[in-house]
Formats: sequence, C-alpha cells, structure tokens
Amino acid sequence: MSRIVYVNGEYLPEGDARVSIFDRGFLFADGVYEVTAVLGGKLVDFPGHAARLERSLGELEMKSPVSIEDLLEIHRQLVDRNEIDNGLVYLQITRGAADRDFVFPEDAEPTIVLFTQAKPNLIDNPAAKTGIKIISVEDQRWGRRDIKTVQLLYPSIAKMMARKAGADDAWLVEDGHVTEGTSNNAYIVKNGVIVTRSLSTDILHGITRAAVLKLAESSQIQVEERPFTIDEAQTADEAFITSASAFVTPVIEIDGRKIGTGEPGPIAKRLREIYLEESLKVAI
Amino acid sequence: MSRIVYVNGEYLPEGDARVSIFDRGFLFADGVYEVTAVLGGKLVDFPGHAARLERSLGELEMKSPVSIEDLLEIHRQLVDRNEIDNGLVYLQITRGAADRDFVFPEDAEPTIVLFTQAKPNLIDNPAAKTGIKIISVEDQRWGRRDIKTVQLLYPSIAKMMARKAGADDAWLVEDGHVTEGTSNNAYIVKNGVIVTRSLSTDILHGITRAAVLKLAESSQIQVEERPFTIDEAQTADEAFITSASAFVTPVIEIDGRKIGTGEPGPIAKRLREIYLEESLKVAI
Repeated sequence: MSRIVYVNGEYLPEGDARVSIFDRGFLFADGVYEVTAVLGGKLVDFPGHAARLERSLGELEMKSPVSIEDLLEIHRQLVDRNEIDNGLVYLQITRGAADRDFVFPEDAEPTIVLFTQAKPNLIDNPAAKTGIKIISVEDQRWGRRDIKTVQLLYPSIAKMMARKAGADDAWLVEDGHVTEGTSNNAYIVKNGVIVTRSLSTDILHGITRAAVLKLAESSQIQVEERPFTIDEAQTADEAFITSASAFVTPVIEIDGRKIGTGEPGPIAKRLREIYLEESLKVAI
Repeated sequence: MSRIVYVNGEYLPEGDARVSIFDRGFLFADGVYEVTAVLGGKLVDFPGHAARLERSLGELEMKSPVSIEDLLEIHRQLVDRNEIDNGLVYLQITRGAADRDFVFPEDAEPTIVLFTQAKPNLIDNPAAKTGIKIISVEDQRWGRRDIKTVQLLYPSIAKMMARKAGADDAWLVEDGHVTEGTSNNAYIVKNGVIVTRSLSTDILHGITRAAVLKLAESSQIQVEERPFTIDEAQTADEAFITSASAFVTPVIEIDGRKIGTGEPGPIAKRLREIYLEESLKVAI
C-alpha cells in the first residue's frame, strides 16, 4: 500500500510527494524535525514533541507554517489514513525554497512535510528483549545538538560503523565522555543509580529522556545527571538508551565488553514497562 | 526568465524541479556538492571540482550516477541553455530516496541536481575593490569539513551573524585558531609571507586555494601553511579569502579592527588579477 503523506497543505500519495530542489532543507540542511511514536493508534508525548519543535524553530529564527492544533490534526489524519496502529509520525519543517544563498531568504514560505512509518513490532521489539550491542565512536557532530536539525549525516555514518563492527548502534564520545547515542540518549546504572549526561547544547533534549527520568524519580530510583566515560559504562551494572521509537532499550555490550551479566538489567526492563504503561495512558 | 535545471537525467524548468521528500539529501543532509564558476561562458577549474566531487563521494561510500564526461556535458548544456556568461553552476549528488532509516539504503539510486546562477558582476564584484569586513565566530561545524557535504546550516547561521554585526562574512575559530571562512578559505599576509591553515579534516580543500597557492609560488611569494589566530590576523599587513565564486577577495577589517591600511592589500589584489588571468586561459 502506498502511504498518504502530507506536504505543504496537501495529502498526497508518497510517490507524488516532492519538494523543490531549491528547498533549503535539501541545499543547506536548514530544517528541523520531530518523530512521534504511535501506540494503539494514539500519539505518545505529542505535547513534548510540539514544544521541542517550537524551541528548535525559535533557535533558528524559523516559523511553523501551521499551528500546534493543526499539527496535531495532521498527525491524526495521517495515522487514520494510513491505518497506523503502532508506528511513527515523522515531521520536518524547513526554511523553504529560495535561490541558493547562505543568507537566510526574507520571503521564503516554510516547507512542512509529514509521513508515517508502520512499526508493528514497536512494543514487541526483539531488541528490547535481547538488549543491543554498542560501539563507541568519536562524536564528530556540530555543536548545537540541542536543536533537532536534519544534519544527520554523522549519526548515519556512526550507525553504519556500528553495523560493520557487528553491533547495533554507536555511542558518541567527546573529550573522553559519552554525549549520547546516534539517535537516542545514553544511560548507565551503577549501584542502583542511573547516570546520564545533563542537558546542554551537547545533547538532544530527549522527550523520552525527560519522561523516563521523571518516572525514575517517582519510582524512587536515584538519578545523577553528569558525563560518564566508556570505561565507567563498561564496568556499570546496566546500560540502556531512550528515544521516541526505542522507548527504553537495554544495552548489553559496549565495545565488545559485556555490561553486568550481559543480559538486559532489571532497572532498564522496569523503566521500559512503566514508560509504556504511562505512555499508553496519556497518549492522545 | 525561468532557469532550465537538471534533475536525474532531465532538463526541466526550475519550477518543475523537485525531489522526493524521502531523498536522503532532504532527510539526512546525506549529499555532497560542488560550485563551479563560469567566466565568459566557460567553466573554471572543472577538473579540480570533478576530482574533489569524486573524493567526497568516496569518503561517504556514494557513487556518482553519471561519468565525469557526462557531468561536463551537463554543465555545458546548462551554461548554454541559460545563456550564462558569468555565473556559477551548482551540482549536488545525494544518496537518493529511501524510506527513512539512519542505515544507508542498499538499493537507492543517487539523486543528481544541477542548476545555474547568473552573476554578471562575478569579476567586477564591488567587494573585490572595496574589500570585505569579517567577524570571528566559534566554529561549530561537524568534524569532516574536508568532505563537501550539504550540512551547511552553521555556515549559514555564521553568515547571518556577520550581517547582523554589520559585516560581510565570518571566519570560524576553533581552539583559538582560524579554520576558514563560512564558504571560503582564509589567509593573512605578514612581511610578504602568505599564511593559511594547512589541509586536514578541519577545512575544505579549496580548489581555488590550491590554484592560488600555486600561483603565489610561481610568483615567488612565500607561503606558510599553519594555523593563525584572530590576534595575528588583526596585526597582519593584509588578509583575504578565496573561493570558487569570490576568487581572491581582500579582507579589510576583522572584528572591527582595520587590517594594515584598511584598504585591499597589494598581494591580494595581485593574486586576484593573476588568478583570473590564468583561469580565463584554462577555462573549458
């Protein structure tokens, strides 16, 4: 079945969904995005994604061509029209099309694109049961990772490096400390305490990160927000990642070394359960 | 007049020139580009741009969908069809369209896009006579600036910062030393010696840079390839930039401080003259 996608006010078959070659998203990576999970046909953490989108746009002096209310309606239309039970809605806004110039155009209309991806195994993901293997690679991304831009070439390269090394994903290391994963936030657990890098321009301000840390707190699990090294991670009791699509996924190996028992840890498993439970309750 | 542009084998009016919203150039900035100057209807340094394109593609495990010979023919067709006397030909190749995934797609066909920009004042650019004003900003780009990717959001932001500060452009500073300009290489001149950062992953391997350094050498002007600071630049006798579209353009002010006499310097002026002279001779 061909998907129905949304491009600048129109619902279109995916094969007809195109943007100008002069779009600044294509020429300058001058665009931001969000990915929202769909569980049982409902949107998870939509207000969080909408708020982060507004922040990303603001940091780049860009405007959304549609209101948050309309954005929600478009998300719902796409979920309906594509009969998404479990899956993702991807949203991208760019500064729009204009003749090529590094200077921001004054009169360009922003481009907005949304599409769905069906992911029947989003909850019953085998990776959640087995845990995933991670390699560490140097963090070569630009300096403003707090802005969710489409400058994703390096995360993509790092993911390929992981695949080639027989692993599932990569953690990025800068000045000796882990920043985050290629498309997720990174955590270790030692003596019952969760350690994860604190928010700054160095990492994405994960919507799932915020939700999970809140749930940890209300479950009386202690959280330390500080940088950690790969050495520290390798000798941790547990490790895991969070993202809108991975929720909480255990990490069982880092650079070939088993973490803890080499099996998904109890805190990661518990957090995944309660995150999914709570998400399903408040999904809209 | 609407331009004729080239997209994946077709010559099209610019208004019809589109790419899929699933193009990895749009979703992941997974693409590379080149800009070749046109003088008197002929292409400047085309072999240099073609060679760098091949290198960029190779570094990203991408392939060109057309041969160098065909690429030259497309450049020439576009110059003819758009009656470009002085101007630019922009070329972009991406990994192509595929459903969104950080992992490189196995079966995507690369996307290729070319378009022209008429620049009647490319040679008689007022900036070449008056010189330009520069501010310094932190270099926040990713680590592989030697690969000419479309991850150009930060250079674009830096250019806007310069405009807001009443300047023309910005030089990017990392660990206290200038890397390069937003879309050009950076040089200073002290006691008759040209100083410019040496080639590495920190900077773009400018085609114009290579040509100008060769011309400097054959004109018995000494060149030192090493990093320099903004302090050193501010107390230099001259400063200038090079790029495929700016050729050699003098810099007369850095962070509000006049360089030398505050007028374009003799070495920058001389290099611009001989670069244009030689380029016109070998343009194809």
